[in-house]
Amino acid sequence: MEIDQKIQFSSSNKLIHLLNISNMSREQIFEILDLAETYVDNKQKRYSDLEGRTIASLFFEPSTRTKTTFELASKRLSADFINIDISNSSTLKGESIVDMIKTLEAMSCDMFIVRHSISGTPHYIAKQVGEKISVINAGDGIHAHPTQAMLDMYTIRKYKKKFDNLKVAIVGDILHSRVAKSLITSLTILSVKKINIIGPKILMPENLNELHVEYFDSLEDGISGCDVVIMLRLQKERMHEALISTDDYYKKYGLTSKKLQSASRDVIVMHPGPINRGIEIDSDVADGNNSVILDQVTSGISIRMAIMSMIMNNRLK
Amino acid sequence: MEIDQKIQFSSSNKLIHLLNISNMSREQIFEILDLAETYVDNKQKRYSDLEGRTIASLFFEPSTRTKTTFELASKRLSADFINIDISNSSTLKGESIVDMIKTLEAMSCDMFIVRHSISGTPHYIAKQVGEKISVINAGDGIHAHPTQAMLDMYTIRKYKKKFDNLKVAIVGDILHSRVAKSLITSLTILSVKKINIIGPKILMPENLNELHVEYFDSLEDGISGCDVVIMLRLQKERMHEALISTDDYYKKYGLTSKKLQSASRDVIVMHPGPINRGIEIDSDVADGNNSVILDQVTSGISIRMAIMSMIMNNRLK
Amino acid sequence: MEIDQKIQFSSSNKLIHLLNISNMSREQIFEILDLAETYVDNKQKRYSDLEGRTIASLFFEPSTRTKTTFELASKRLSADFINIDISNSSTLKGESIVDMIKTLEAMSCDMFIVRHSISGTPHYIAKQVGEKISVINAGDGIHAHPTQAMLDMYTIRKYKKKFDNLKVAIVGDILHSRVAKSLITSLTILSVKKINIIGPKILMPENLNELHVEYFDSLEDGISGCDVVIMLRLQKERMHEALISTDDYYKKYGLTSKKLQSASRDVIVMHPGPINRGIEIDSDVADGNNSVILDQVTSGISIRMAIMSMIMNNRLK
Repeated sequence: MEIDQKIQFSSSNKLIHLLNISNMSREQIFEILDLAETYVDNKQKRYSDLEGRTIASLFFEPSTRTKTTFELASKRLSADFINIDISNSSTLKGESIVDMIKTLEAMSCDMFIVRHSISGTPHYIAKQVGEKISVINAGDGIHAHPTQAMLDMYTIRKYKKKFDNLKVAIVGDILHSRVAKSLITSLTILSVKKINIIGPKILMPENLNELHVEYFDSLEDGISGCDVVIMLRLQKERMHEALISTDDYYKKYGLTSKKLQSASRDVIVMHPGPINRGIEIDSDVADGNNSVILDQVTSGISIRMAIMSMIMNNRLK
Repeated sequence: MEIDQKIQFSSSNKLIHLLNISNMSREQIFEILDLAETYVDNKQKRYSDLEGRTIASLFFEPSTRTKTTFELASKRLSADFINIDISNSSTLKGESIVDMIKTLEAMSCDMFIVRHSISGTPHYIAKQVGEKISVINAGDGIHAHPTQAMLDMYTIRKYKKKFDNLKVAIVGDILHSRVAKSLITSLTILSVKKINIIGPKILMPENLNELHVEYFDSLEDGISGCDVVIMLRLQKERMHEALISTDDYYKKYGLTSKKLQSASRDVIVMHPGPINRGIEIDSDVADGNNSVILDQVTSGISIRMAIMSMIMNNRLK
Repeated sequence: MEIDQKIQFSSSNKLIHLLNISNMSREQIFEILDLAETYVDNKQKRYSDLEGRTIASLFFEPSTRTKTTFELASKRLSADFINIDISNSSTLKGESIVDMIKTLEAMSCDMFIVRHSISGTPHYIAKQVGEKISVINAGDGIHAHPTQAMLDMYTIRKYKKKFDNLKVAIVGDILHSRVAKSLITSLTILSVKKINIIGPKILMPENLNELHVEYFDSLEDGISGCDVVIMLRLQKERMHEALISTDDYYKKYGLTSKKLQSASRDVIVMHPGPINRGIEIDSDVADGNNSVILDQVTSGISIRMAIMSMIMNNRLK
């Protein structure tokens, strides 16, 4: 699907959908991180930003943390949150996604949070909705997961303050990971010094050169001197494609305390979750001093509050 | 099941359940439409009408739009809304519906929204509940779907102002459609000029004469000069009964722009949704200038707010 | 699993989790009953006790009444309530319960309501959570169901005023019933005069002597002169184990009006629900004058409000 990059901005270049990060500026990303920070700093748990607004979540793929953080973020902003139960919905009985969206729009829903296994679905929906309705991509196929990347940027900035001198490693199945794609895009916009990607060669994207990343097959080499190491969740069904067993994967790409020693002394270890302990990451690393995995989860609420509030606010301008 | 027509009114003839429309007066219907209109006119999104009230939805059949509009309507009236997840509930493990209802009543639920595949279930429940508890029928078997008919009356009045001179066509499987039954009842009470019903003869009710409707086998003839055309959703499983293929059904009863020309110039086209594009209705009609299908969805919220608020208010009188 | 009895109290002996009743004092139980009574006496439906708090329910076993009463109790205390949909959650895809809990904790959840088929799971979780997070056991395996026992004590006190002179009978599969275990514990702490247990011998716990109960195989003998008769739900899958047919079970242990005559004249009949009419209890008893079964349901909300509010309040001390 050809993806229109301009649709997520208004004529005055304000964010009105969040579909992917690739055409956002450094300033636009920082604006979101800064707003999220105000929610973190205030100990307040309830804001009135979205009072009277209705947010509908449509998750065509299962999810706990992303869906729950969007729900909590909506409630903390005083929105009405409607969780459309896809498995019991009419969509499965032949109604098209567009008809379902149009129907929800007619019910005065102001914003859709969409996860779908087909890349580009949130873009497609954003093109169909009325001009006052916003769409947030909560993960589409192997394409993008912009709110995850945004919370990861928040977490990195929290610990590392500046992006310019950072060396960042991303480890796992880059090819099929929407998280990895959005991370590489964000880190590139924020001009980190270096992005290393590590994993079985067959699970790397083909356009490596365009991506401004360096590929490593060795985990130790790839994370050597890195300030940030981001582990991706191993999708077992992809291992068949890579002709590698889970055991071999762990031996070669699993992050252990020992291997982590080649990274910077104050490296932070990240993971979008849910983690596979003993497969892509050892428990002593996941639960260790360098891990900021649970911090990422916490930031997920503030970041999603910031994104939803900003987008709704931009609608009024 | 013998259905008691009086149960839905208090001794002072106030509506305290909404089970079907057949014994309502023109004035009672208009009272609901008028109240719904006040919710539409006010741009306000939150009312306190049902503050401190608990509404439980029990959908024994799947639904997106009806269930969601009841949930949104409840929230906009400040009620606590509890969605009983039937598939995970004890009912399936042998508890009777009545015991489940009594249990929810003991939890101080004030109102039940019930959809069930067996005609008469909401009446049955209304007979069992305590004297302060109300039941709203959200669709029972092939019997009635009063809130749908009510929102359809709202939509018709919005576009046509008065009912007296209207010619209305209803197209599809009238026999098995609870929507059609409640529509015919409502339109009869509101004294429209003419009701035509169209579809395969085998899918028409036997008591055609009693219904004050005229039957047509030809779509063009049936909608000729009509001000309102209401298409019903084709239930594929019923087609076997009618010995007609989906293709043949479309050719004969599917609404296309061309066929619509035989209707009145300013005809409105309605459909309870979800629509089967290219089966009972063409996309150019569903999305065309005469379609008010999404308007129906929007009215669904205000109408349900009006019904819930009025019923609860009548309980206090 | 070895169960740590002290974990549910703070260093100043305040309740901070509710996992089981066995190490609670008479005073601590009464404190909860008294607080619940204030919620009952006030006709108010909305309290601010848990404003800004987030409660997550994790039911690994299906439930209607327990889950719904916790949800209603949370809403009436103004908490944000998140229902984690286990069947769609990551847990089933390999995430451990602890990782899931840690993740929810990172989302600022303040309290977990946990039901699990494995005895001890809520204790296990309580050991893992941070020091500001509380866990309430909503039923674990065959071990305990403390909030059910607590609402039963509330109901008994409401009708019988004092516990000291009471003769209480519990009828059914004591061995596998977490409700029965928590009931026996509570009644023992509250020093009732006598506890009789009745049912097939093979469904009785082995440590009968330690339990300060008397076993009867005859229902009439067991309930003779009793002030309170508590019927347990028959789990059909356990009947195979007991080598008894449902019909034979009913003949021997099913409570009928006739058999109930051997109890005290003003006996109250209780059942945790959902009831199997005509199996462990006859409809004329379940719906009769001595039945307080629906009263138990109603008390369930106030009791759970009291427990949640007290625990959260104790966290601040």
